[in-house]
Amino acid sequence: MRIETLEELAERIKKVSDVTILTHARPDGDTIGAGFGLCYYLRSVGVRANIKNSDGFPQKFGYLFEGYSDMDFEEKCVISVDVADKKLLGDELSGYADRIDLCIDHHISNRMFAKESYVDGESCATCLILYKLLRIMGAKPSRLIADCLYTGIATDTGCFMYENTSPDAHRAAADLKEFGAKAAEINREMFQIKSKGRILAEQKVIGSMKFFGDSRIALITITNDIIDSYNVDRADLDGFAAIPLTVEGVEIGITLKQQADDPKKFKASVRTVTADASAIAANFDGGGHVRAAGCTLSGTAEDAAEAIAKAAEKYL
Amino acid sequence: MRIETLEELAERIKKVSDVTILTHARPDGDTIGAGFGLCYYLRSVGVRANIKNSDGFPQKFGYLFEGYSDMDFEEKCVISVDVADKKLLGDELSGYADRIDLCIDHHISNRMFAKESYVDGESCATCLILYKLLRIMGAKPSRLIADCLYTGIATDTGCFMYENTSPDAHRAAADLKEFGAKAAEINREMFQIKSKGRILAEQKVIGSMKFFGDSRIALITITNDIIDSYNVDRADLDGFAAIPLTVEGVEIGITLKQQADDPKKFKASVRTVTADASAIAANFDGGGHVRAAGCTLSGTAEDAAEAIAKAAEKYL
Repeated sequence: MRIETLEELAERIKKVSDVTILTHARPDGDTIGAGFGLCYYLRSVGVRANIKNSDGFPQKFGYLFEGYSDMDFEEKCVISVDVADKKLLGDELSGYADRIDLCIDHHISNRMFAKESYVDGESCATCLILYKLLRIMGAKPSRLIADCLYTGIATDTGCFMYENTSPDAHRAAADLKEFGAKAAEINREMFQIKSKGRILAEQKVIGSMKFFGDSRIALITITNDIIDSYNVDRADLDGFAAIPLTVEGVEIGITLKQQADDPKKFKASVRTVTADASAIAANFDGGGHVRAAGCTLSGTAEDAAEAIAKAAEKYL
Repeated sequence: MRIETLEELAERIKKVSDVTILTHARPDGDTIGAGFGLCYYLRSVGVRANIKNSDGFPQKFGYLFEGYSDMDFEEKCVISVDVADKKLLGDELSGYADRIDLCIDHHISNRMFAKESYVDGESCATCLILYKLLRIMGAKPSRLIADCLYTGIATDTGCFMYENTSPDAHRAAADLKEFGAKAAEINREMFQIKSKGRILAEQKVIGSMKFFGDSRIALITITNDIIDSYNVDRADLDGFAAIPLTVEGVEIGITLKQQADDPKKFKASVRTVTADASAIAANFDGGGHVRAAGCTLSGTAEDAAEAIAKAAEKYL
């Protein structure tokens, strides 16, 4: 059943007790911020609540859960936050897949897997939904809750840089700073600091950037060699795909990632300014969105680069 | 004479006619945004106004002045925006130094060189002052004025990332987006896109990063060789100084820049998380602020690096 308004959602939240909050696997700032934000809010009004994740919470977000510990109770209500599909709960939490009471999410693609769902596909972050919810309920976020909600809004908008940043997102950030969110520290942690290995691996990858189609296509290759020599976590390679499009004049950016288990296989990520990325990926049985898509190529790094660059040139 | 309130400033602005607006040399987003924003506003209420800069306006900001052309009139009023000191007007505009009628600025260090000055040292951008001024005057910014003011607020706050980002700055950004500012496009132009030469030069510089003091000090060197081989504009090297502090665990970041006219001289930029940067620079007769300071060193690149790193270690 779909919950249509924030007011209805507020009424629903007022009735919960003994809550388990679920966040999505490979958690990001929005699911973590929304999960802990909701958990701390519920505890502040006397509702027992715990939060769970299949993969654990990365230490990078430690400032949100330093003082957290699980409470002891028998759960009566399960709420998922920022989870678009029950598959995204991950292995550890898969047992919850068909018994989620309430889903709060901002993905337009939400599969409506919960008994009740509040989905606002227009919202740039689940944390923004939660902020509005708390205000409607008359709650004054604590400093820690403000940190949680600021984290989700900032990370899902690329620090207010992306197209999805709504006026509401800026206004929520303004309020959250007034409620004590330590925004500058959070931004430094989220957007500026990188591990030494990561920064050196980036440098190596950028140094080998190749250009095609009159420099309107840029391609980088992340080899197993680079990942191993700089000791970079494979789960932490997502940001690389944005690099090629940062070069002036580049309209199609391609990132090839050599596969650990098969060095003759490369996962390609295609990002575009105006061209249809999913059409480019479809040349190699891949797919995705108009501005971001993916596919897999076989052969040497050189073969893979040549093949996808040649295909991409047709879309310039 | 000091103008104390925005209301007084509004009264003053209502009386101007035939205005020349001055911006600071080596112009940035805030002086350009404030200058064109004020110029377009004055023209919209029937006041003739032109804008000037000693170095010309970089094409990067072309979206703010594509349709601009000078008007023909005899100037009766000179206003400077975002200019902290008359020296910063640059050579071309130095003749205006002692005949500025009105100064609007956000630098706490403003030298009060104009006949009348409105200086709000708490404001993160001159464009934020102007936005508040326009609202007090009941003006509804056009799309183009919204682009101007958004540009200044975004660039002076590092896209809302830095400590100086006030709740007001977020609220102004929210309003300006509603007035039509094409924020995402501006952000991409200002913060994401780099020239091919710049991105490759960065890669080269990062690749040669040196670590001292248990990796709590990071040092990069921009050599003449790198600048020449990647054809990077020397005026465009400012952002490099932020790189060393982006490495996890680094507390003191040092950037050495070899001088074009004397390859045995290096200008050092010192940035710190908590240590006193100006004290480190003072070891070499330099100075600056607590978190950002500078000095000059002589010798080979290796000598310069060793000398300043050794001095910096004492401040860990």
